[in-house]
Amino acid sequence: MIFAMFISHLSNKRLQNQEAIKRRCYTRSVEMAKKLLLVDVDCGVDDAQALMMALAAPQVQNVCRNTLRVLRVCNRTEIPVFRGAASSLVGTRASLPVDHFGTDGLGDAPDETDTGTECVQKEHAVSALIRIVCEHEGQVSLVAVGPLTNLALAVRMDPTFPQKLKDLYIMGGNMEGKGNRTVCGEFNFVMDPEAAHVVLNEFSCPMYIATWDFTCRNKLPWEFFDEWVSQDGDKAAFMKRITSKCRAYSRATSRKDVLFGAGFVSSENEPQWVGNDSSVMSGSIECSVSVELRGELTRGMMILDPSHTLNKKHKAFLMKEWDMNKFTQLLTAALKQSC
Amino acid sequence: MIFAMFISHLSNKRLQNQEAIKRRCYTRSVEMAKKLLLVDVDCGVDDAQALMMALAAPQVQNVCRNTLRVLRVCNRTEIPVFRGAASSLVGTRASLPVDHFGTDGLGDAPDETDTGTECVQKEHAVSALIRIVCEHEGQVSLVAVGPLTNLALAVRMDPTFPQKLKDLYIMGGNMEGKGNRTVCGEFNFVMDPEAAHVVLNEFSCPMYIATWDFTCRNKLPWEFFDEWVSQDGDKAAFMKRITSKCRAYSRATSRKDVLFGAGFVSSENEPQWVGNDSSVMSGSIECSVSVELRGELTRGMMILDPSHTLNKKHKAFLMKEWDMNKFTQLLTAALKQSC
Amino acid sequence: MIFAMFISHLSNKRLQNQEAIKRRCYTRSVEMAKKLLLVDVDCGVDDAQALMMALAAPQVQNVCRNTLRVLRVCNRTEIPVFRGAASSLVGTRASLPVDHFGTDGLGDAPDETDTGTECVQKEHAVSALIRIVCEHEGQVSLVAVGPLTNLALAVRMDPTFPQKLKDLYIMGGNMEGKGNRTVCGEFNFVMDPEAAHVVLNEFSCPMYIATWDFTCRNKLPWEFFDEWVSQDGDKAAFMKRITSKCRAYSRATSRKDVLFGAGFVSSENEPQWVGNDSSVMSGSIECSVSVELRGELTRGMMILDPSHTLNKKHKAFLMKEWDMNKFTQLLTAALKQSC
Amino acid sequence: MIFAMFISHLSNKRLQNQEAIKRRCYTRSVEMAKKLLLVDVDCGVDDAQALMMALAAPQVQNVCRNTLRVLRVCNRTEIPVFRGAASSLVGTRASLPVDHFGTDGLGDAPDETDTGTECVQKEHAVSALIRIVCEHEGQVSLVAVGPLTNLALAVRMDPTFPQKLKDLYIMGGNMEGKGNRTVCGEFNFVMDPEAAHVVLNEFSCPMYIATWDFTCRNKLPWEFFDEWVSQDGDKAAFMKRITSKCRAYSRATSRKDVLFGAGFVSSENEPQWVGNDSSVMSGSIECSVSVELRGELTRGMMILDPSHTLNKKHKAFLMKEWDMNKFTQLLTAALKQSC
Repeated sequence: MIFAMFISHLSNKRLQNQEAIKRRCYTRSVEMAKKLLLVDVDCGVDDAQALMMALAAPQVQNVCRNTLRVLRVCNRTEIPVFRGAASSLVGTRASLPVDHFGTDGLGDAPDETDTGTECVQKEHAVSALIRIVCEHEGQVSLVAVGPLTNLALAVRMDPTFPQKLKDLYIMGGNMEGKGNRTVCGEFNFVMDPEAAHVVLNEFSCPMYIATWDFTCRNKLPWEFFDEWVSQDGDKAAFMKRITSKCRAYSRATSRKDVLFGAGFVSSENEPQWVGNDSSVMSGSIECSVSVELRGELTRGMMILDPSHTLNKKHKAFLMKEWDMNKFTQLLTAALKQSC
Repeated sequence: MIFAMFISHLSNKRLQNQEAIKRRCYTRSVEMAKKLLLVDVDCGVDDAQALMMALAAPQVQNVCRNTLRVLRVCNRTEIPVFRGAASSLVGTRASLPVDHFGTDGLGDAPDETDTGTECVQKEHAVSALIRIVCEHEGQVSLVAVGPLTNLALAVRMDPTFPQKLKDLYIMGGNMEGKGNRTVCGEFNFVMDPEAAHVVLNEFSCPMYIATWDFTCRNKLPWEFFDEWVSQDGDKAAFMKRITSKCRAYSRATSRKDVLFGAGFVSSENEPQWVGNDSSVMSGSIECSVSVELRGELTRGMMILDPSHTLNKKHKAFLMKEWDMNKFTQLLTAALKQSC
Repeated sequence: MIFAMFISHLSNKRLQNQEAIKRRCYTRSVEMAKKLLLVDVDCGVDDAQALMMALAAPQVQNVCRNTLRVLRVCNRTEIPVFRGAASSLVGTRASLPVDHFGTDGLGDAPDETDTGTECVQKEHAVSALIRIVCEHEGQVSLVAVGPLTNLALAVRMDPTFPQKLKDLYIMGGNMEGKGNRTVCGEFNFVMDPEAAHVVLNEFSCPMYIATWDFTCRNKLPWEFFDEWVSQDGDKAAFMKRITSKCRAYSRATSRKDVLFGAGFVSSENEPQWVGNDSSVMSGSIECSVSVELRGELTRGMMILDPSHTLNKKHKAFLMKEWDMNKFTQLLTAALKQSC
Repeated sequence: MIFAMFISHLSNKRLQNQEAIKRRCYTRSVEMAKKLLLVDVDCGVDDAQALMMALAAPQVQNVCRNTLRVLRVCNRTEIPVFRGAASSLVGTRASLPVDHFGTDGLGDAPDETDTGTECVQKEHAVSALIRIVCEHEGQVSLVAVGPLTNLALAVRMDPTFPQKLKDLYIMGGNMEGKGNRTVCGEFNFVMDPEAAHVVLNEFSCPMYIATWDFTCRNKLPWEFFDEWVSQDGDKAAFMKRITSKCRAYSRATSRKDVLFGAGFVSSENEPQWVGNDSSVMSGSIECSVSVELRGELTRGMMILDPSHTLNKKHKAFLMKEWDMNKFTQLLTAALKQSC
């Protein structure tokens, strides 16, 4: 049996580019021998990468859906794709001047084979999420690597949704009040703070968070990256093409600690690999978390509450340590492997 | 052809009373000769009344759904009922110490015939809203007399939902910064400010708002009320029973200007009657509106922007004048009439 | 015995014009037969007018201090002037594009006799306020027609300051959530919401407020204004010169309900006249009041709390009715009279 | 020549205890050979300690003012003391359940020699601050170990105050969004966020900040503390008495990372020692800083802006490394020395 879905998060200027819309923003689900994995993706290079990684995960027997372009590169166009929420929960948008992804979010690499969005399913991503999780209660690992709008909508449409999940992996937030999108806030949380608030407060399933701080501290050297995308094969070539803009940006800038230092590679893949193979995460903190909604400078900032000041029952696992050896092995295999 | 739906808003302590849940919180749709009317209801005495009024509207040929109890009183149990959002959009709840409705929200009047919630449909109210409005594009008048959570979810699930509506009637908000729920905020907006924000900003269809201020200025005398519920028939008797607590509260208190002065009768019926028969509204202001999300004292307050300071394109019609003669005639007929 | 003082409020772009600084921003105190009146003035045409009115008050025997230019016109240059706070309490400034006052705040009318600011006292206005009020405990009526920064500083420097006042007259705030500076806020309160908050919360003396709404509803016809400034004498000529820009603005615009409809004349004079002769105020509401500090759209909005939701002990008197006959008589006399 | 002043910060429940008021809350100034040091103190054990340390500083030739009790213990009652602001800038108070200081803020150690507050000067602390700094332009090092209310008032009363300072040392704020007073905020900043905002934004002199995080990472072992207060002499005995409650609290609790781990000793002394002898600070970060005023959970949190997102010109030095050897030597000498 095969599941998959596309869930777009559109808190993103890149999506105002109609051509771009066609190639991004998905959630896919993969069912492995004993594992069902749903990935909620936003857009752009980082997510294309995440999808390719997911498709390459050795335990994944049956990949279900994916983005159209990445799916084509991987020859998996049979997989259906769903469209999700078109704006943040409350609809207040932050502007998005992220140029290193290119104007189409996939590095402006030409796409000669673009076949449009006909293959996008009619069922809304949130409905599909609820349906699939309901059909496989207790079995689904959900991985969210974009803003959390769809997850917030899912719990609002079905209050029992969180308890039916096996676990949840989030890429987003920060641990020390420093941000990459605003002075205090990380991109995914800032793009939809209310959604992050709903998810952190109402998803009572086991929750694992790969924060931006964590990502920054677990970067791979660019030497590895260059070698990695220079492997033989279509997938490596595709990865090289869509990342060339980021790579140049990274060379030109001295802000090595921000989104695209050598950390580019790992950022959106970490929660997913943990979903695939939790042994990659070698250390974590268990802590109550929340998100600031009202601050003038801190709106969207993730908040840690180790002293239980906020009296929240639920705790999240914040990733702290990472097995880099295992990780580089998995990455290398992913682009090598045919899927 | 008959439509109807149940959409619960649960921003309400009364709903923690499980017995109470069974009897409240619906949206029903009624299709008339040429008119399709959906009513999004919250709970309690006020909404029971609104539903009874809707059922009695002379032009309504086919009532579709309604609350179970009110439906029983009106012998319309064939009508399906849907359940909607269980909390506000962002999930931050205000506490609700409204005693004059009784602990079950229907005046604590015993319900010997309670048959549970089996008849509630499995389709979610938001999905049903989207489906019905899509099936009858341009024909549906939507009436919202509770917090606007479901409407906000509908536009998030389907961005084209607002433009498919014929028009929207809202009971909620205020025009002069004075509130009945908080010092500056009206109940329905305060219960879900973010939802109100989404609806006021994103529903581009014609929008009519019966604010709390308007309601307070268009009260019916208690003499009329007493006469009205003392008519013969089951419906009047039921209305009298569920309103006895409110009536007593109203006598005991001097806060005539708040929720339950003689205005009780009209408050939630006004937008509906306008939906039924717009000639009841004899005057209105056209004005851009918004809602405050961040204020410490003003969160949930409706904001009028007559000078276009906020540069919003869309304007709402704020009800200003009301044909009381016509209104009392309609009310009287509603309880007299058998449905 | 004669007192007077100058208290500048500088939340104002006009004050960045160095030439302009010389001519504005004072508090003066006047001691009458049995009356000690301090006026805390901001700047510009409106305040010049307020000062001239104060100087002309028939009961004022001894005017103490005033703005340098107005003082010169009135031949009262012996009166000392003090400088007050140079920015709002917290220092976050709103920009100030008020053109109808001219770039110097006094209608850009040439000032051939400008003698600089040498006459400004070295004692800070706040210190002088505290000192004088302390020396005349229970006798001082304080009139504030600008942002309330200096008053807030006074209570912070001396917590007993409010209780030593006889009473306080404020021109500022609004009663219905509509503003002239922002969509919901009145100029003086918006320029320093924190100061307004401190004053409304901590000044326990009798407090009278002439809100912007009140002012708008008690305008004088422009016919009266034209006649008024066309009287013989230096003072009328001066008033005509400094108001010519406002007058033109008023003719050109259809926003009759905003700051400069025919209401121009009365706006800043009302609290002062009440301070002089309370019989001008023919009706008022007693009500707890506060001010919103956090709102995104409502920051600086005055809040009425008639139902005591906020549990504040102190109430203010909000002016509601005004004896227009008496007022026009006083105004006419003011420009006629020699001082 | 000798200077001194008392500046109380009263954002503190302990001050509601009238007896307690007598013994706390000062700023003193000390002029050394070439050094003029003003210390703005809040209250309680921590500040008593800070004062004793200051009095003991070997380079201090002439201690000017100090708290009455500490001054008596040190036989320095000739030094005048001034009273400062009685509440935070905007007057919104946070409640203060800090029990480990005792109800009087000095560990509830009996004070048989209490002679009241007669010796408190009539000049307000803010006026005295301005006056002294003006008289010694460019020479004064100001050390603030409490909420920053008085400093904010000083710049509001005299905009040139900051530029006349030699430098400013602040104990307060945090660097990683974790707090000791609220989930995200440090005590001194949370007690008066607006004052912190004013100081961080408007004090253009060199500014050194010892944050709470820094303090926590530079604790002294309790073994040192026990030995330290067990030295011979009145001062050590006094220190032991007023700290016994804290010591017990520290033993009983496992929250070693909060205000009173072994860090108790150093917390309020660090900025002062740097003021005395900057060689104690062995490393720092230069960074733009601000403070959140609006957040629901983050109000009062200090914000670092290393990427200049906020476009602030001024930078502060955030202490990072500390010479513990030098520090323990200075501490030991302080209680030994007779003053």
